[in-house]
Amino acid sequence: MTFDPDLGYAYPARIGDPVHAVATPALIVDLAAFERNAARMRDFAQARGLRLRPHAKTHKSADIALYQMAHGGACGICCQKVSEAEALVDAGVTDVLVSNQVCGAARADRLARLAGRATIAVCVDDPAGVAELAAAVAQHGTELAVLVEVDVGTGRCGVPPGQAAVDLADAIDAEPGLRFEGLQAYQGALQHIADPAERQAAAESAAQLTRFAVESLMAAGFACNTIGGAGTGSFRIDAALGMVNELQCGSYIFMDADYDRIREADGSRPGGMENALFVLAGIMSAPVPGRAVCDAGLKAIAFDSGPPRIDRPGLRYTQASDEHGVIDDPDGQLKRGDTVRLVPGHCDPTCNLYDWLVGVRGNRVETLWPVTARGKLY
Amino acid sequence: MTFDPDLGYAYPARIGDPVHAVATPALIVDLAAFERNAARMRDFAQARGLRLRPHAKTHKSADIALYQMAHGGACGICCQKVSEAEALVDAGVTDVLVSNQVCGAARADRLARLAGRATIAVCVDDPAGVAELAAAVAQHGTELAVLVEVDVGTGRCGVPPGQAAVDLADAIDAEPGLRFEGLQAYQGALQHIADPAERQAAAESAAQLTRFAVESLMAAGFACNTIGGAGTGSFRIDAALGMVNELQCGSYIFMDADYDRIREADGSRPGGMENALFVLAGIMSAPVPGRAVCDAGLKAIAFDSGPPRIDRPGLRYTQASDEHGVIDDPDGQLKRGDTVRLVPGHCDPTCNLYDWLVGVRGNRVETLWPVTARGKLY
Repeated sequence: MTFDPDLGYAYPARIGDPVHAVATPALIVDLAAFERNAARMRDFAQARGLRLRPHAKTHKSADIALYQMAHGGACGICCQKVSEAEALVDAGVTDVLVSNQVCGAARADRLARLAGRATIAVCVDDPAGVAELAAAVAQHGTELAVLVEVDVGTGRCGVPPGQAAVDLADAIDAEPGLRFEGLQAYQGALQHIADPAERQAAAESAAQLTRFAVESLMAAGFACNTIGGAGTGSFRIDAALGMVNELQCGSYIFMDADYDRIREADGSRPGGMENALFVLAGIMSAPVPGRAVCDAGLKAIAFDSGPPRIDRPGLRYTQASDEHGVIDDPDGQLKRGDTVRLVPGHCDPTCNLYDWLVGVRGNRVETLWPVTARGKLY
Repeated sequence: MTFDPDLGYAYPARIGDPVHAVATPALIVDLAAFERNAARMRDFAQARGLRLRPHAKTHKSADIALYQMAHGGACGICCQKVSEAEALVDAGVTDVLVSNQVCGAARADRLARLAGRATIAVCVDDPAGVAELAAAVAQHGTELAVLVEVDVGTGRCGVPPGQAAVDLADAIDAEPGLRFEGLQAYQGALQHIADPAERQAAAESAAQLTRFAVESLMAAGFACNTIGGAGTGSFRIDAALGMVNELQCGSYIFMDADYDRIREADGSRPGGMENALFVLAGIMSAPVPGRAVCDAGLKAIAFDSGPPRIDRPGLRYTQASDEHGVIDDPDGQLKRGDTVRLVPGHCDPTCNLYDWLVGVRGNRVETLWPVTARGKLY
């Protein structure tokens, strides 16, 4: 990184820089792998006649969301927070599902306001949520599509499939500014089950619960235009089971070290997706033989799914502190000033630590994408 | 949070708001506890004739750094990254030790430039680092104070005490723009040893290694003006051992759930410090009896030191995903729309997730402090 008299040090790299000139630690996107992942998911969904609404909570980037809509077969995107949706709509995204509960009159107000600027859908699992949304759209003269979230095995939000879901559909249907759109039936807990047979069984159970919810609603006169679900660990299974019609995968675009463990029954990676996201770390010290210390620690990589994998054989990231990572380097490969690529344990919270995604092709910086919704927590 | 036509939703709260109106999740500072912690550390250092240079990597806030210097007995602050130091100097901080290695000509250039605007010191553990700094200060006509970092038990950066430290002091002394200032002798690994006797033993070992380094330098004609070290888990022990003369504690100002485990030999908390930092989380769903779901997950709390503690008896944070936290609530205390205060497992990387610290006194928002150096990674 060179000081720019106009820009100061606000940017981690300049377009055209070689990769080794990027200020470390930095979040690097391998653009060729990223594009292949986007195309794989687009082709998968198109071949099966499924809608694709990728989750933007992974990358939080308007540039990537717009790429997914323009080239990646996406009908729109998912967000998890109202503030995230606001940031992406501000940056030009036109169709967002907040695949989550929105709690409180203030947030409902913001969402109803946003629905005046883009096509917005949202989930509910409580009649109080329906009432808040209804009051807000009435005030702003807008409309929201509403999905009833059912718990199909995650054990988090969502009502049990059955009468509770029908009651919520009734409540939505009674409100002029709300449109019952269908079901949110995402099973988050099964995405990271490493054993293919166990993952298959969990997906089958989720599909059965989803079917029960759909049939209960049908019996009450409600058709589900959207049945949303599926993640990067389960989308091939979910598509084969045929219950969801809108895929909400997020991580597929980048992958991470935790998803490296997840394999299809034939041993292949889910959908053939590749690692496209790396943390470029600099070696700041190699004080004694066998130990190197990099400049990417707890503030540069999320550790909830374990330490990063180093993208070079013979090296192991063994200990993290706030701004350091200790690397076991028995063969003495690394010296001060070198760089290494780390595959983060969990891509979503890692992206949220950065202001910029540095898009790289070959050895050159091709683009800088702001992490548009970084830190958009509420 | 109410929409402000001028400000939009850029702020999590307004001054004077009651706490329950703060947009969740939010980072809350209990100002009374914060002020008591600052006074405790000030009085401790003054009573023992020690300098205090609190670590700003904990809070990354210029307002807090300036408070520590004006009211908390601090002679300056520590930073861990050049970009962090730049952000705090831009905001008015006048004296910074980068208590870390600075690697590469570009970073050395930035630090030398910064030394034209504030009093700056830095650590080295490699002759190449000395050469980079020397070239940079020569170019900018500035001066840097330089500490030799010695490894006194952390197993991270730093040369072994003894001849390697003397060689670095010689190298520093040979450069006109660099001034040998003393030793960086921080033992990070011992701060979180829960057993007081084990922690005492580790601190004694660190003090012995520090003494050896000081004596080796003395024998070579180098006096250490600064011997920096000590953290929140060890400062009372380190002060009693008498080897460090500048305390670099950071977490004391906030404390966290991991430091809740750390006790002095008499069972008291280190220095009597109190929890002053909380994540205010909203309950967004309580779908079945016994389970509540809050809106603070992996992007709102750092999990490297375990899950947060809920600041109310009978509740347990059991499962985190990106934007959700599942709470075990066997007595059904929580309902949708409630808020809970969480004590994060690790304060430093949690602060780094937020744009704002919301300062609260009693039930009112008294101040909003930007997290000035949030995301300053390089």
